Amino acid sequence: MKPEDAAVKIIDVKVTTFTHTIHTEKDNDGHTHPGPPRTVKSSVLTIVAEGAEGHHVCPPEIVRPHVIEAFVKPVLIGQDAFMREKLWHALAHWQRGSAEQLTDRLLAVVDLALWDLAGRALGQPVYKLIGGYRSKVPAYGSTMCGDEIEGGLKTAQDYGRFAADLKRRGYQAIKLHTWMPPVSFAPSVEMDIKACAAVREAVGPGFPLMLDANHWYSRTQALTLGRAIQNLGYAWFEEPMEEASISSYVWMANQLDIPVIGPEVAWGKHFTRAEWIRAGACDILRTGVHDVGGLTPALKCVHLAESFNMDCEVHGTGAGNLTLCAVQPNGTWYERGLLHPHFDYDACPDYLLHPEDPIDAEGFVHLSDRPGLGQDVNWEWVKAHAVSTH
Amino acid sequence: MKPEDAAVKIIDVKVTTFTHTIHTEKDNDGHTHPGPPRTVKSSVLTIVAEGAEGHHVCPPEIVRPHVIEAFVKPVLIGQDAFMREKLWHALAHWQRGSAEQLTDRLLAVVDLALWDLAGRALGQPVYKLIGGYRSKVPAYGSTMCGDEIEGGLKTAQDYGRFAADLKRRGYQAIKLHTWMPPVSFAPSVEMDIKACAAVREAVGPGFPLMLDANHWYSRTQALTLGRAIQNLGYAWFEEPMEEASISSYVWMANQLDIPVIGPEVAWGKHFTRAEWIRAGACDILRTGVHDVGGLTPALKCVHLAESFNMDCEVHGTGAGNLTLCAVQPNGTWYERGLLHPHFDYDACPDYLLHPEDPIDAEGFVHLSDRPGLGQDVNWEWVKAHAVSTH
Repeated sequence: MKPEDAAVKIIDVKVTTFTHTIHTEKDNDGHTHPGPPRTVKSSVLTIVAEGAEGHHVCPPEIVRPHVIEAFVKPVLIGQDAFMREKLWHALAHWQRGSAEQLTDRLLAVVDLALWDLAGRALGQPVYKLIGGYRSKVPAYGSTMCGDEIEGGLKTAQDYGRFAADLKRRGYQAIKLHTWMPPVSFAPSVEMDIKACAAVREAVGPGFPLMLDANHWYSRTQALTLGRAIQNLGYAWFEEPMEEASISSYVWMANQLDIPVIGPEVAWGKHFTRAEWIRAGACDILRTGVHDVGGLTPALKCVHLAESFNMDCEVHGTGAGNLTLCAVQPNGTWYERGLLHPHFDYDACPDYLLHPEDPIDAEGFVHLSDRPGLGQDVNWEWVKAHAVSTH
Repeated sequence: MKPEDAAVKIIDVKVTTFTHTIHTEKDNDGHTHPGPPRTVKSSVLTIVAEGAEGHHVCPPEIVRPHVIEAFVKPVLIGQDAFMREKLWHALAHWQRGSAEQLTDRLLAVVDLALWDLAGRALGQPVYKLIGGYRSKVPAYGSTMCGDEIEGGLKTAQDYGRFAADLKRRGYQAIKLHTWMPPVSFAPSVEMDIKACAAVREAVGPGFPLMLDANHWYSRTQALTLGRAIQNLGYAWFEEPMEEASISSYVWMANQLDIPVIGPEVAWGKHFTRAEWIRAGACDILRTGVHDVGGLTPALKCVHLAESFNMDCEVHGTGAGNLTLCAVQPNGTWYERGLLHPHFDYDACPDYLLHPEDPIDAEGFVHLSDRPGLGQDVNWEWVKAHAVSTH
């Protein structure tokens, strides 16, 4: 019997879109803030193979019927679900000329569903398939962006108070997202520095703090802000400028002692990250499963960074990013959030059976030992609230 | 239940040393040539976990009782066999100060046995655990070094005749190892060029050929040889100089159009390979599971190279290297050999149930779909010919 005969053949790709309640809203710059309960739609992509299924939940716009029919099914159907590297490259090559529909986010959802399928088929959590490094990961509390909500994240003092609260709750580190447009007084280097100082004051010296501020500062603004948080003993400085300009990050990193981390949103997957390292644009690499097209390429970023003795800190939440954290020797943190005084992050989403990143009293997020990626869909909820399938 | 409770705990590490017959001998420079049948010893390392075992065969000197007791057992026993990344780093860190005993080759054997264990425990070939790219790989026939054996590889004409034979047998590419000391007239740039020309003549234009010659040529000798095989349309030029001198390879690569491949034996695992890429010392990266401490770090080399748009051609034979070939998009060949007119490479070794790299008539080596890494020990043979266990 040849391997092709032993294949776990993919026979269908399905999307179920359903409603659920969230307690956040987005401003017209795309930033998330607490909000009144509202009903929104999410989708779960299901890859069906002979004897095994894999799933991943995502926003409906990523898995629209057209992209599933035009790209995903033609590449996947009839193929061996365990040939992830082959399938990923087939999709990634098709992006040329079609990237507006066949997005990196879609590649990520497909790749994560394939990993989930493998874990479920073999009865293992995915991080153990890859080869685990750790089964729990310290989390940093990652705040929402600043706002103009009373008792929220309106003032530097609000940040300080919230940081002290997060520290009390066990978080071993905190990262601030500060004010960005459309907040009336944003962006403001001066206000960012005040918030960072208030948080340092609140948590005391030595406690790890990071900053992710407005992403469109000029070079000189970014350098001023970087020097200020360097003096406050911050652990890293994240994306203060447009990331398409690698030269700006080289210029800034050369003048700062505080580690510069990146890139996060820059186009180009692991290839762009290799260029950042080569150029000396970052001291810590950044990747996330939803930023570079899945766990498969994100793992390459981690391996790339390790080959250069560089940490790679994982961006974003969820089971895929937690899995990446669990297999890496060259990184410390899991990003947990976004957090806000008026928002209960720990509540399990309607459509899941368990939270994806449960935290203990010491601030560690634990890997699940259940088969699959670690995102367990509550099918009872999904079926009861389904609005469409394709 | 936490992941630690779900662990597949390692309970023992065993080595069985046994005798078998080979038809090769080594010269006093370490090169392999055909020889009369003789009995030699090999060892099989077995990692025993609760409900699963993994194995890998290696030379006895790699897994001496002392290194198993002093390093391997203290790191592995009681640990989860699926936490490969953690275990590999624990061993690799212990190498500092102990590398003469705790060699990269030992790390490789342990890592390969752990991958074998995972595959057997989950009923999957290892390349599908990692995520497959291809299930068959074109092989290049890799010759033994030149010799002074009549009808062997004594003359340029011998190489030409043997190359034509390999082409007839289906090999899609051929790599020459030419004459090295203690051959009386070696090393000789002139003779190397003659052999390369005879082989090109024998197989015709367009057929992929590579050269791996004496490894201690001077810069000017290497450049002369590189230019000659460039003119003969060779596909790559491999390790003509001491690899500790990265600058020599930068110097040479800058002056040659033919792709330079490396490093192969250079100390430093994936870290050194990152420096070769950064320095521009190679056009194609080289790694092998036995060169860098296992499949785990070799996969990082492949990912590193892919991030720089660079092929990474896998060095060496066996199930571990074939597995690496099967998961990589950025490489073409499996190295099959070493081959010689007087040696039957295709015969299955006494101690295996199947050859590790079966080749078809079109020159493709096929991955096994049996659980594990693809090296299936003939335990009946091993038990009947065991000379010691520890």
